[in-house]
Amino acid sequence: MFTVEILSIGNELLIGKIANTNAQYLARRITELGGKVTRIIVVGDNLDEIAEAVRESLGRRPSFIITTGGLGPTFDDMTLTGIGRALNLEMVLNEEALRMVRERYEVLSRERGIPFELTPARIKMAILPKNAEPIRNPIGTAPGVRLKIDSTVIYALPGVPSEMRAIFEEYIAPILAKISDRVFAERYLFIEGVPESSLAPILEEAMGKYTDIYVKSHPRVEEGKPHIELHITTYSESRERAESILSAVAEYLKKAVRERGGLVLEKHT
Amino acid sequence: MFTVEILSIGNELLIGKIANTNAQYLARRITELGGKVTRIIVVGDNLDEIAEAVRESLGRRPSFIITTGGLGPTFDDMTLTGIGRALNLEMVLNEEALRMVRERYEVLSRERGIPFELTPARIKMAILPKNAEPIRNPIGTAPGVRLKIDSTVIYALPGVPSEMRAIFEEYIAPILAKISDRVFAERYLFIEGVPESSLAPILEEAMGKYTDIYVKSHPRVEEGKPHIELHITTYSESRERAESILSAVAEYLKKAVRERGGLVLEKHT
Repeated sequence: MFTVEILSIGNELLIGKIANTNAQYLARRITELGGKVTRIIVVGDNLDEIAEAVRESLGRRPSFIITTGGLGPTFDDMTLTGIGRALNLEMVLNEEALRMVRERYEVLSRERGIPFELTPARIKMAILPKNAEPIRNPIGTAPGVRLKIDSTVIYALPGVPSEMRAIFEEYIAPILAKISDRVFAERYLFIEGVPESSLAPILEEAMGKYTDIYVKSHPRVEEGKPHIELHITTYSESRERAESILSAVAEYLKKAVRERGGLVLEKHT
Repeated sequence: MFTVEILSIGNELLIGKIANTNAQYLARRITELGGKVTRIIVVGDNLDEIAEAVRESLGRRPSFIITTGGLGPTFDDMTLTGIGRALNLEMVLNEEALRMVRERYEVLSRERGIPFELTPARIKMAILPKNAEPIRNPIGTAPGVRLKIDSTVIYALPGVPSEMRAIFEEYIAPILAKISDRVFAERYLFIEGVPESSLAPILEEAMGKYTDIYVKSHPRVEEGKPHIELHITTYSESRERAESILSAVAEYLKKAVRERGGLVLEKHT
């Protein structure tokens, strides 16, 4: 089973200007593809912080590190330099990346009817850590970047959500799907009339009885009515096996909850 | 200026079930209160991961660490044990916390007309690392927790957003406001007709010319029309000084953008 750490870079996340929806998107997709996200880290647009976070992450030896943000043309887009510093790699102009950037701005110049110019800010997007490879950005100017270090592959993606998603779906998702040896599946139960603290021992019993499953309870209040959402998840070798485990666990939990006078609603996803 | 690391605990964040809106809320509020969030970390419901993240965070010596999640009654609510393990602190039944939990369930039992019972799952919420103090949860069952370690104060808050916010606003925000020696202020400019790569040198100039300001550019597409959002932020000793710096920077940027043929719209917040 492959593991992934997500490293989100950007002051806008640390000042709460936006929620980290990029990390959520990646976490969801990686899980669906059978992988396990083991950590999400957010740091600001700061060279030392980025380098430190990359070094720490590499030390935990995930299969992949996916970074978002900090690939653009401005002075505070410093993800690649941070990766370079973490790995003690020289920063070099990558000819293939430069070609990608050039093509993009040639199109933009034609569209806007302004002269084409390869400014330092634009060239900057093609300066990568040595041995890194650019990944074509189908809808934006900054290429993505791939760099393999020992057993970990680092992918650096732009922070603009549409560009991040485009590169992930076109380039990375097919690679993850190919190496994945697990299927993720999930089911929801909604419980009324039994407080979370009374469900606690039931969940523990279920997880002791069935292997490779995880049951998490989330207290919810909707229209003033409290209920508990149970989220049952499993990673399995096949879709059939996953669904059969989920059905068995759901039946077990439904029975236990009803025995304690609770109401249960099931929702397949 | 005080610094804060946010440690979000919960598998639901690592599988992308939800966005980390708790971290966004805290980051926004801490920034408004004049503090600086230096890192956000997300780990799963795993004792070793939590302990490791707490240890690492303490090593960076922030003024505060705020954790969210993992305070409830189920077996996988293990934030406090994780903090205890990180600090090599014994876990002990805290009488004041137990009184808080008991009061809560007595009310719930009366309301629902069911017998009151202090089950192991409920008592668990009152078992804190030695020397930790409980914080009253005004709307939920699991108390928050405060623990001072050297120059860092750890606050552990529940993951249920309404409970997290209630404890933060009632108990923590007043403390942060009191110690804060900075005012945060911000302004937005919306630019059309100048690509981000051409703005890059202007932003760098502005940040060289004015101290204590930060200008970040965010490319946006709305209704098919590309524009750049410039977010100007500052931390200052007074509201007046902050607003006067922002006005000066905004004027500087507007002039520079217009000289390059761009359109500028200003938005005060």
